[in-house]
Amino acid sequence: MKLQRRGPLGHETPAVLVDGVAYDLSPVTADIDGAFLAGDGVARAEAALEAGELTPLADQQARLGAPLAQPTKIVCIGLNYRDHADETGAAYPPEPVVFMKDPSTLGGATDQVPIPRASVKTDWEVELGIVIGRTARYLDSVDEAAGHIAGYVLSHDVSEREFQLERGGQWDKGKSCEGFNPLGPWFATADEFDDPQALGLRLWVNGELRQNGSTANQIFGLQHVVWYLSQFMVLRPGDIINTGTPAGVAMGMPDQPYLRVGDVVELEIDGLGRARQEFVSHD
Amino acid sequence: MKLQRRGPLGHETPAVLVDGVAYDLSPVTADIDGAFLAGDGVARAEAALEAGELTPLADQQARLGAPLAQPTKIVCIGLNYRDHADETGAAYPPEPVVFMKDPSTLGGATDQVPIPRASVKTDWEVELGIVIGRTARYLDSVDEAAGHIAGYVLSHDVSEREFQLERGGQWDKGKSCEGFNPLGPWFATADEFDDPQALGLRLWVNGELRQNGSTANQIFGLQHVVWYLSQFMVLRPGDIINTGTPAGVAMGMPDQPYLRVGDVVELEIDGLGRARQEFVSHD
Repeated sequence: MKLQRRGPLGHETPAVLVDGVAYDLSPVTADIDGAFLAGDGVARAEAALEAGELTPLADQQARLGAPLAQPTKIVCIGLNYRDHADETGAAYPPEPVVFMKDPSTLGGATDQVPIPRASVKTDWEVELGIVIGRTARYLDSVDEAAGHIAGYVLSHDVSEREFQLERGGQWDKGKSCEGFNPLGPWFATADEFDDPQALGLRLWVNGELRQNGSTANQIFGLQHVVWYLSQFMVLRPGDIINTGTPAGVAMGMPDQPYLRVGDVVELEIDGLGRARQEFVSHD
Repeated sequence: MKLQRRGPLGHETPAVLVDGVAYDLSPVTADIDGAFLAGDGVARAEAALEAGELTPLADQQARLGAPLAQPTKIVCIGLNYRDHADETGAAYPPEPVVFMKDPSTLGGATDQVPIPRASVKTDWEVELGIVIGRTARYLDSVDEAAGHIAGYVLSHDVSEREFQLERGGQWDKGKSCEGFNPLGPWFATADEFDDPQALGLRLWVNGELRQNGSTANQIFGLQHVVWYLSQFMVLRPGDIINTGTPAGVAMGMPDQPYLRVGDVVELEIDGLGRARQEFVSHD
């Protein structure tokens, strides 16, 4: 099942996407959030759909909101693709590198993204986002993680490299600027994927292909990441985990072509749709 | 004005504390949160109190919840006291070191705190928490920050040093364990303080004084921190900023006496009350 939130910022309507048509999910839930996921919302949505209780949204062109409501937290895994670690000159980490992003950075798949004031190194990162469906706390094994994953989402972990790396030691400062986490176009439940560990990820800047990777190239796989994080924090329904980016970011290129006002980034992941964001002035 | 949330976890009642008596604030607001602060809630609470519209809570001994509802984010400043930087052997940072904490780590002032599974270096940190009252985004000057601060709160930034420093480069991993941010006993509005930059902070472990500092010793002052952060992220009403800890943490002591099951930490800040947390097994 593919879930969306459609409509103006702050007033999105929950929807389910079937053969390209968005059906109003309001009769089932007020929002696509942790309570919906924890409360068997996906099953209820499926039942309502099968019973013919859902009608198409009046405006099928309504803005794409982030397909999930603002979560308790966004956790990110750094340097988690072999090719990306290679391009940045970093050694493969012996265990996952973990940092966080302000959850209020979430935006829709086609929202404009402001380049922060004083930024000269705004960079792109296509990422597979894990969506937690059930509270995960000290999971006993990697296998157990699957039962806590609700599904996956296309996530753009926009990053300011100077803020991240040259301004005081910790990465969070370059990860939490306004609008720095476009999400969607949809959130797909886990049952839609035969093997989420073999999905292609691609990203273009102004039409030029910059990233072209596969989740098969992750150093720490999706289930490993969920199991691992659960040893350090409680993962809650609706939480999002950005699981790292493949090679091809601006920082790793010889001429470091960081994003400028007017640049357009397009990105996609197999089964998770395509997004397009224009980068604009911060005001 | 001193604000509290009293009652069982997840079912706290908002309250205002006057001369040691907690008055039920439910007629004014459902919760002490960002919407309350942004919507002139403090003024409405004062008016209701003066009009005699509030009655004392039936149970004056009810559990102390975190005095603020779960915020969008908890931002933390590292190495922000001269004496603490000295004890850890770190140079004074040229600009604030910024990291984040899972907002769901908030707990009440007298809640038990679990020592994480596999932890051997759980440490204490008494901190002054800033509570944001009005959205702060690219503030033009340090002076402007005062208008965005709703007040202050006693915050315990519990930290696992091995997770933080020896497990992969970024600090967040050792800061977000379950229950790692006890808050309160109350949240005090900014007008209660003549000079928040001259408040004593103290912390005891099993009755022995371990930290005894003053916010006068901060490298980056409270208003500076708010102004600074607003250049990198949008601070939203209800957000909490832990502004660093003075000298005296376990990591800085010769024998590094990290917390063990059964240890009791007490902490206080001038004008922000006193808290007491017993450290317990994670299950």
